[in-house]
Amino acid sequence: MSIQRVITFTTDFGSTEHYVGAMKGVICSIQPGAALVDITNGVQSFDLLDGAIAISQAYSYFPKDTVHIVVVDPGVGGARRPILATAGDHMFVGPDNGVLSLIYEREERVSVRHITSEHYFHQPVSSTFHGRDIFAPVAAYLSKGVEVAKFGEEITDYVRFLAPKPKPLTPDSWKAVVLKTDKFGNLITNITARDLPQLFAANPPPFKITVGKAEVTKLHPSYVAGVQNEIFAVPGSAGFLEISANRASAARLAGADKGSEVSVVIG
Amino acid sequence: MSIQRVITFTTDFGSTEHYVGAMKGVICSIQPGAALVDITNGVQSFDLLDGAIAISQAYSYFPKDTVHIVVVDPGVGGARRPILATAGDHMFVGPDNGVLSLIYEREERVSVRHITSEHYFHQPVSSTFHGRDIFAPVAAYLSKGVEVAKFGEEITDYVRFLAPKPKPLTPDSWKAVVLKTDKFGNLITNITARDLPQLFAANPPPFKITVGKAEVTKLHPSYVAGVQNEIFAVPGSAGFLEISANRASAARLAGADKGSEVSVVIG
Amino acid sequence: MSIQRVITFTTDFGSTEHYVGAMKGVICSIQPGAALVDITNGVQSFDLLDGAIAISQAYSYFPKDTVHIVVVDPGVGGARRPILATAGDHMFVGPDNGVLSLIYEREERVSVRHITSEHYFHQPVSSTFHGRDIFAPVAAYLSKGVEVAKFGEEITDYVRFLAPKPKPLTPDSWKAVVLKTDKFGNLITNITARDLPQLFAANPPPFKITVGKAEVTKLHPSYVAGVQNEIFAVPGSAGFLEISANRASAARLAGADKGSEVSVVIG
Repeated sequence: MSIQRVITFTTDFGSTEHYVGAMKGVICSIQPGAALVDITNGVQSFDLLDGAIAISQAYSYFPKDTVHIVVVDPGVGGARRPILATAGDHMFVGPDNGVLSLIYEREERVSVRHITSEHYFHQPVSSTFHGRDIFAPVAAYLSKGVEVAKFGEEITDYVRFLAPKPKPLTPDSWKAVVLKTDKFGNLITNITARDLPQLFAANPPPFKITVGKAEVTKLHPSYVAGVQNEIFAVPGSAGFLEISANRASAARLAGADKGSEVSVVIG
Repeated sequence: MSIQRVITFTTDFGSTEHYVGAMKGVICSIQPGAALVDITNGVQSFDLLDGAIAISQAYSYFPKDTVHIVVVDPGVGGARRPILATAGDHMFVGPDNGVLSLIYEREERVSVRHITSEHYFHQPVSSTFHGRDIFAPVAAYLSKGVEVAKFGEEITDYVRFLAPKPKPLTPDSWKAVVLKTDKFGNLITNITARDLPQLFAANPPPFKITVGKAEVTKLHPSYVAGVQNEIFAVPGSAGFLEISANRASAARLAGADKGSEVSVVIG
Repeated sequence: MSIQRVITFTTDFGSTEHYVGAMKGVICSIQPGAALVDITNGVQSFDLLDGAIAISQAYSYFPKDTVHIVVVDPGVGGARRPILATAGDHMFVGPDNGVLSLIYEREERVSVRHITSEHYFHQPVSSTFHGRDIFAPVAAYLSKGVEVAKFGEEITDYVRFLAPKPKPLTPDSWKAVVLKTDKFGNLITNITARDLPQLFAANPPPFKITVGKAEVTKLHPSYVAGVQNEIFAVPGSAGFLEISANRASAARLAGADKGSEVSVVIG
């Protein structure tokens, strides 16, 4: 048998310590030819929503049966369970703290198991680094084709949270929020085409979005359509409305960041 | 057929979001055993010259027929074309904005095609993330051995810029510039052995280089040859003259950075 | 012959330049299907102890015969020798400056060779980037199964330093130090279970640890056991006692960082 499924990493372990390297070592020891791909190890420390967004934006581009390791795990060593989820055509291992919530939300066929099969763990199991001792070896055995049922019983009371949605204030106005600022300074809001389809249309109605000190009244299809120092809205590649600038940081120009309130008035 | 060419990444997407991960997912879905190598995803945002330097310093070390993805793409979604260049023994995909200029400058056999073959794209094609939707899948098909002619027609009016060269002021003096500061604080200037061979010789003539508040009169073959707090010149591994310090940041000591003027007087 | 040993990277080259990419290119040119794994390229610039800690915490999780490249090399181009060490079941290449000291300390079977076999080098050999010109190609040939004896003669006077140990001040008190602050703000001390086994026990005696402005009197088995804003000790996954906080940066809360003194009183 030579099954070799891709294994991906989405963690808040950063790139200045040995953490992700140790996880990959554990995997290579079990599955020498493993195909390892980092989605990002730069999730903000302890930030479940940031991790949930990162994995939800990337997983669907990977092949069927990819094993995704998602470790943002401030509760490691406590009561939270290690879980293995299958959702759509993909597999996920990580802590049961909601970091997979946006996957559960997107996929129809979801099955979650409590990982209890200690003989697949890396022994001894520490109480501070389950990425290395539980999630990495379980992912490695999954990538070799071990069946999900071998790792533990199915559960239905797994933890999930709702991503913050824009709140209607009046029929024409909403309160939204900046989910994160990306590396370019784009302000990624929580507004999707399902929430406010008008703002994703080719010819949107007049609107005003206020974020930080910026008042945004233009929607552009791409960043390059903006003129210098203009702050505008753009339908982002991840499905969220972004507040952006052309070759500049909208976050800096607007004085806004993750968590900033976004007020929307249409018409 | 089991052609599996190496695919490299040189982008300004950073390591704190899912962008590069999504690109790699697209590639793995087309070419499951792809050999993926990051050159750097830490190019300064929107900075074409920084990207051009990074790829030009690394590509030639890779095997023949490596496919290099180079995405610094502030004009994504606008009029700029996606291109596929073959240069020497290597292939490059990226935006036609000049980010490959230093490759064109170094290689004699250059052929550039406008990528128009939409059936190789990841659909739907967004207007903000061609790295995922165009460049990644095209690179994946190239790595599988699809012929370059399949992706579009050859063009000759592709965009190129000239890297800034030292300007002679008098027969004995030049004005140069700091191209970038590296992670160690080395100031990488735009001075090459072709511009000022005297400064790359074993026994250079007397010279004075002024950058920031530093006056440099010593050339050392290696960083370790410098004494504590000394700022000196060194022929860098990338072919540029560097202003450096031994186990310290020359950038900090000199108060200089990317863009700083470098004045050179010889004799 | 199709030996393909894993090759790992532990360097201070960072992720914003082409340095690690160029090394990987050299390796792919020698060993096209190489399995390349980054442990970390974010070692603090020029910091041998930081590099020594990173590799020592990760190498043992990799398979037998893995080739570990360890390049923190402020003395590149000077008198320091390039070396190849075999220790336990692993191989290491890097500069002879002590960066492998913690490996020598942990492993019983250690053999070190001075790399002199220039025909394995990437020519021309620069005097500022032996990572690319010496260590990468030597690692690639090792990964293909070339015998260690082919690379140079065994030496016994290789450089090693002792990691700082806690110093006893009285029978009940010790002076220790913060080795590093990790990405989460955990203060990694130099205290191990061999030094102070009492602090790694399930029921430790009363103790007081002072670091920065924090006085620590609690030992928790995991981060999540701490209450909000509490600073506590935890036996870290790397074998060192850590000073930590639950979902917060102990470094920030305590006003301490790498190099800070740690005073320990027991009983």
